[in-house]
This record gives sequence, structure tokens and C-alpha cells, in this order.
Amino acid sequence: MSQRKIRLGAFIPGAGHHVAAWRHPEAQADGAINLAHYVRLAQTAERGLFDTLFLADGLAAGYGATAAAEGKQAWGGSFEPVTLFSALSVVTERIGFVATASTTYEDPFILARKFASLDHLSAGRAGWNVVTTGSGTAAGNFGLAQHPAHADRYDRAREFVDVVKGLWDSWEDDAFVRDQASGQFYQPAKRHELNHAGKHFAVRGPLNVPRPPQGHPVIVQAGSSDTGKEFAAETAEVIFTAQQTLEEARAFYADVKGRLAHHGRRPEQLLIMPGVFAVVGRTEEEAQRKYEELQALILPEVGLSLLSNLAGGVDLSRYDLDGPVPELPETENMKSRQALMLSIARQHGFTIRQLYLWVAGARGHWTVVGSVEQVADQLQSWFEQGAADGFNVMPPWLPGGLDDFVELVVPELQRRGLFRTAYEGHTLRDNLGLARPDNRFVATATAAREAAPALAAG
Amino acid sequence: MSQRKIRLGAFIPGAGHHVAAWRHPEAQADGAINLAHYVRLAQTAERGLFDTLFLADGLAAGYGATAAAEGKQAWGGSFEPVTLFSALSVVTERIGFVATASTTYEDPFILARKFASLDHLSAGRAGWNVVTTGSGTAAGNFGLAQHPAHADRYDRAREFVDVVKGLWDSWEDDAFVRDQASGQFYQPAKRHELNHAGKHFAVRGPLNVPRPPQGHPVIVQAGSSDTGKEFAAETAEVIFTAQQTLEEARAFYADVKGRLAHHGRRPEQLLIMPGVFAVVGRTEEEAQRKYEELQALILPEVGLSLLSNLAGGVDLSRYDLDGPVPELPETENMKSRQALMLSIARQHGFTIRQLYLWVAGARGHWTVVGSVEQVADQLQSWFEQGAADGFNVMPPWLPGGLDDFVELVVPELQRRGLFRTAYEGHTLRDNLGLARPDNRFVATATAAREAAPALAAG
Repeated sequence: MSQRKIRLGAFIPGAGHHVAAWRHPEAQADGAINLAHYVRLAQTAERGLFDTLFLADGLAAGYGATAAAEGKQAWGGSFEPVTLFSALSVVTERIGFVATASTTYEDPFILARKFASLDHLSAGRAGWNVVTTGSGTAAGNFGLAQHPAHADRYDRAREFVDVVKGLWDSWEDDAFVRDQASGQFYQPAKRHELNHAGKHFAVRGPLNVPRPPQGHPVIVQAGSSDTGKEFAAETAEVIFTAQQTLEEARAFYADVKGRLAHHGRRPEQLLIMPGVFAVVGRTEEEAQRKYEELQALILPEVGLSLLSNLAGGVDLSRYDLDGPVPELPETENMKSRQALMLSIARQHGFTIRQLYLWVAGARGHWTVVGSVEQVADQLQSWFEQGAADGFNVMPPWLPGGLDDFVELVVPELQRRGLFRTAYEGHTLRDNLGLARPDNRFVATATAAREAAPALAAG
Repeated sequence: MSQRKIRLGAFIPGAGHHVAAWRHPEAQADGAINLAHYVRLAQTAERGLFDTLFLADGLAAGYGATAAAEGKQAWGGSFEPVTLFSALSVVTERIGFVATASTTYEDPFILARKFASLDHLSAGRAGWNVVTTGSGTAAGNFGLAQHPAHADRYDRAREFVDVVKGLWDSWEDDAFVRDQASGQFYQPAKRHELNHAGKHFAVRGPLNVPRPPQGHPVIVQAGSSDTGKEFAAETAEVIFTAQQTLEEARAFYADVKGRLAHHGRRPEQLLIMPGVFAVVGRTEEEAQRKYEELQALILPEVGLSLLSNLAGGVDLSRYDLDGPVPELPETENMKSRQALMLSIARQHGFTIRQLYLWVAGARGHWTVVGSVEQVADQLQSWFEQGAADGFNVMPPWLPGGLDDFVELVVPELQRRGLFRTAYEGHTLRDNLGLARPDNRFVATATAAREAAPALAAG
């Protein structure tokens, strides 16, 4: 374990991850649309030497709350992630920015451009969490009655990512010579048209942004279905995943890492970072007290509405709250999340009420409540037993939950030699230990140059 | 003239407006992708009390340079405007940000969201320059062989702007109550679905961003065709326009202002700001010397290529450089710019070479070369004679050209009582003197409430 270090992401939605976080007296209730709040979070996470900030995203306001819960969840109004991270890039120096964006509803040229721009603004600290948007009501905002089917979304996603990477390679790294004397601004031979013509897209290129400092912003994914895992094994460099237990996490880790060789990739080229909803105290009792304080803030109608959404959009209000969780009709949306909910309910013998209380905080992610040592023990255990390369830290409320992690857990991980004591590099790739990708057109050009004499000789 | 003040925009493309600006020894050759350069420009313009920064935009790398000029123009690599302005919002306090974005190739939900986000990040300093993208090779980046026809683009633009404004109104200004005690985060009655179903778009809404601080970011336009002027009269609050002479500018001003009443609008609701390519010196000779220095940096192949593009994409290289400008076949793209080029050539009896030298700097905008007093005289004359409400200042090279304007021309305009000596307000609307728009759903809701008792009584 000498050199290998834990990677840390800070997943920072507005007032925090707990569904009632915004009601916490020390939370920033308007955090999702408060720039000063986000500046503070970014600087705190950077002080804690986190690899990256992370923001989830949905292309709709809310996720279809039930009537009783309408207006009682902290949804509906936040910054768009790439614009927010562009602003935060100016007030930070080393931390990365992973923004979520959808391959189902965005356009590849425009998406490639905004992430390339963020990578330039931040001098190489951008990452893209690729999602296919299976939850929520986004379809209606883009002229569709419902989301395309799961398999179709992934088919489009595969082509979309390939196009975006190709656009990022439009210009070779040294294409822009800007030679004032001769008047040569760029070298035409180092400018490449993509000329992609596929099933979903026709995109000529080149992109109107120089190649990003990182070559490509880091590709992140979070899908856990079989299709999602295969897609990640093919293209992702980081996976954010929801795993409940060490056993499940180890199985997921082994499964995904095992798929890499098939795609000609090595295990260290893909970092697996489960989400961890960590409530930390100076003592176990303090941590428990903090957790209970948050749980007590959950309105029943909100807990139920949240659960209905996580269970695949099924309305659970017609069932007995204190009865067992029923079998659910299969849905095209959020397949893996629905299966997870059912598995949790069966495993613990939960009633509907118990299940919503259980998932309300972490929404299906791993929950750790304990003292500094207990939390560090858990993280160390997952890290050393083949369950994780790092963690996406989900503070229960913000900013306090992140402060706690940075002030209490980070120093403990450092004492144990498990976490960095200074940033290794300047770009997100440097810090994550990920290689800078080759330019697909340079490889082609090299091959062509090598082939040409042979042909001439032949 | 007591109260009326000149409005100023700073139009800041990379190394400057002159086609050879990047070759100028004092220009920032990589300015288009250099954040430190843009921070300096933004802070300089704010020190000069400019109303706004402005960035043009095209969704393609370059504009189809001829083979001889390939790689010799400063095109191909810049920041995406909204991400850049998001970053600049953090290092400025009062100046506005007008970003260009296309209604032909962008999506209304995603566009509404990014501009709303910029307006929040900047606390009310965003503006959107609405363009329909008629130039360049953008179509191929979005699966099309060529741009849609001029009239079709404007038809889509009209619906697009209406949808975007509707999405910005999704939430009433006081919708988010965030009452920690009761658990009410927002008031459901103040959340509105747009439910737009039109010819080009079907968009349900609501937007997932609270109503922008300005209500709507300021709507800017730059089209000069008859269709463009009518569209502007209907929806724009600022027009950036290319006018060559006082007479033309007065005619344009009177034409557009005269169209407003037809749309139920008053003249002061639309500000007309012609572009001005100003080369200023402490003396007239110094200004002329600066201008000649730039002109001497134009490579002939670059001048010709630029002219071909401005003339509507027609290749002029097969004509005699020192012969007259030929009649040009009419084109769907850039109608008004092509007509302008021909009119300039005929008016001055220019050869092709003379024409490209003449337009290379300002690209069809008004060119003023002179001492501080001469430049101020010209601006004052246009402002007081019904040709302009202000100017979009186009520095020949950057950062020096903007420094000159701020250090020399601004104080002179202030001495004459023509320009502010302090910002009037905090938002771009405040500073431009534009009213904050009503929320379309509030008007509807009010009408409904007023109608309801009558119905009940009836």
C-alpha cells in the first residue's frame, strides 16, 4: 500500500445531500444558487486537498414530487454546473471540476466546446460526468413525451462520447504557433476535421477551441446497470458509484476492473470512487446526534415522495406506510436504482417508512456515521480490500459537513499515510494519476508517415 | 442633452479587431484563449465605467479561409463566451456581459439555462446577443449541409426567443421562500410550466434555475436586414450595428426607432449602439501612425480572404486585385453585409485591394482615426444627431487599444458631460436604464384572480 493513495471528490449540491439538509440551522438554505457559498466550499475542499468537486445534474426542475410534497424539497433552482465551475476556476488553483452533462439531450459540438472552454479556463482541471438522463421529467423540455429507451440512450451515448473526444482532438497540441513575424497563426496541417457521419450525429469539425490542456477533460461515469458498466469499462476514467456494503462494493469493483482488459485497458486507467455519505463527529455519540438531528427534519410526505422517485417513479402513496415494500413494475428508467431499493428493503425487512428514512439521507449511497477513527477505519477498509480507489464524499449538509470532513477526517487519513499531503500536480489528470490521452489524428498522421515510404518503396 | 448619457460596450475579441492585430508587437497574440488577458480587459473596461463587455461568436473554427490564407488569420481557438463571462463575473462588480449565441443551432432550454445561470453568477449583469448564424461553416457541425434559409432562421429565432423568455419566467421572483421551520422550500403556485407547443419547439418547463436577477438578461441583436430590423424592433433592448456614415446611421436609427410603436414600445426601450473602430492618439499624427502600422501588417492573401468572406462567401481570388469589385451573385447568407461591401466599393470607386485594406480593420464598421478631441467630437456628433444612443467600441488591438480609449477618450467624454462618472446601479439593466420586465405568468395570474370573483359572482 506504500504509494497508492485515496482519491477524494467533494459532491456538493446546494445545502447538502440529506433530503432535509436545507432545514438544518447551520446549512445554507439557498446554497444551490449562492455563489459565495460555492466559493467557500471550493476553497475548503481545496484546502483539504480534494481531487475534485462534483455536481450532479438534471435537465428539469424537480423530479416529479407528489402533490403532498410539492414545494417541500430543495429542488428547482440551481446554477448550471459548467458556468458555476467556470466561475470557481478563478478562485481556486488545483482542485478539479467534474460537471454532469447529458448525452441524450445535449449536442456534441456545443458540449465539447463548453468542457474544452472550462478546461482552458481552469488550466486543465475539467471533468465530464457522462449521463444518459433516465430520471425526472427532462424529456418534455426537449420535445419528447418520454426518455428514449435505456439501450437507445446508451447507443447514442457511445457515439456522442466518441464525437466529443474527436472534436477535442481537432487541433494538435502545438497547432497554434502564432508567429508574428511570418504571419502564420496556426499550422494548417495540425488542424483536423472530424468528418463524423454516424447513426445519431453528423459532425464535421474542427472544434473552435484549441486542444484542452488535459488533451481531454477527464471522463467520468456513474451508471451501474450492465450496459452502464460495459460503457464505463470502454470509456470512463473515473466511476462514481452507489454501493451499500463492502461485499457489494468489492463485487462491483472486481466486475468493472475485470472488464477493462477486454477493451485493451489496464486496471489503473479507471478509478472507482463509491459515494460515501459520512456523518463524522469527535465521538460516535456526537456523530449519531448529528445524524438524528437531520433525520428528524424529514417531513413524511417528502420522504415518501423521494422514495417513489428512487424506486423508478412508482407512486407508493397508495400502500401502507408501515407495511412491506411491494413488488414494483419494471421500468425503463433508473433500472439499477430501482433494483437497489428493492434489495435494501428485502435485506433489512424494511417497511416503506423505514426504507424512506433509510435512503433519505444518502439516496442509496453508503452511509457512515461515526467518530473520526471509525470513519477513517471504514474508508481504509474499503480502500485496502479492493472496493474503492477513493470516495466521492457526500456531505450531509453544507457547508458544515464538508468542514467536518476536511478538518477531522482528512488529517486522520494523512496520518495513516492514505492521503496526499500536497497536490502532486496542476491538472486534474496529474492529481488523479491519469495519463494524458494521445491525439487520434496524430497517431493517424504518424502511421500514415510510416506507411508512406513502404508504399513508395513497394 | 442634460440627462442623456452615452452607453459604451467593449467588444473584445482576443488580440483585437484589426485582422492583423495579433501581429502587433504590443498585442496579446494568444488573447482569445488567455484568461489573464481577459481579466485585464474586463477590469480595464470596468475602470472606464463601460456598460458592458461584448463577444461575438460563431459555431465553427474559422470562416472558410482561402488556401493561400489558411492558418494566417487569428481564428480557430477561443473560449466559449458564456463560460468565459462566468469566470470574469467573479473578478468584476458592475460591468455587464453580452454573449452571442445562436437560435439556429442551440437549444432553447439549455440556452435559457446558461444565460440565467450567468445572470445569477454575476448578480444581474448578463445579456444575450441573439444571432441566427448566417456566416461560416457551422451547419456541418450540426448535421446540416448548409444553413437554413434566411427567413426560416428568423422564423425559428422569433419562437426561440419567446420560449427562452417564457422559461426565464418559470419561477416568480419570490417563489423560493425556503422556510426552514415549515419545510416549505418554494411556493407551488409561483412555479409555472410553460407548456409551449409551437412550430419549431415543444418545451414544457419550468426552467431549473430561479428567475434571473434582471428578470430577463438583456436582449441584444445585430441583424441589419429588413427582417432583422423588424425582429429587433419587436424584441431587442440593445442593437449593435455596423454603420459607415452619419447619414446611414441616422437613417438606420430613425428606421428602427420608428418601428417600435407598431410593437407597442417606446423609443427609449431600445438602445442603438453602432460599432466604432477607434484608433486614438494624443495627436492626429500619432493616431494615423498607429493605424498605418496595423495596415502594414496585413498579408495580401489574408485581406483578400477576409473580403471574400464579408462579400458573402464569394471567392474573389480569380479577379484582378487592382481591378474593380465585380457584381456578386446574391447569397442566402449575410445578405446585409454583402450589400454593405458593394455599396462601399461603389461609393469610393475602390479596387478589390483598396476595398480589402479599407475593411480589414473594422470589417464594415465605422472607422475613426484621430486625436482624443477628434474622436470625442465624432462620437458626440453621432450621439447628438440622432445616430446613436451609445457605441460598441472595437479596439484595433488588445489590450493597448482599450487602454487608450479608457485613458484618453472616456475622460474627455466625461468632461463634456456625455458619459457617467460612476455606475448608476448594480445590474446591466440599471446601468443601461432599461426596465426590469414583468413576469408573463404573474400578469396572467393577476388577471385570473381579478376575473375569478366576477365569474363567481356571475
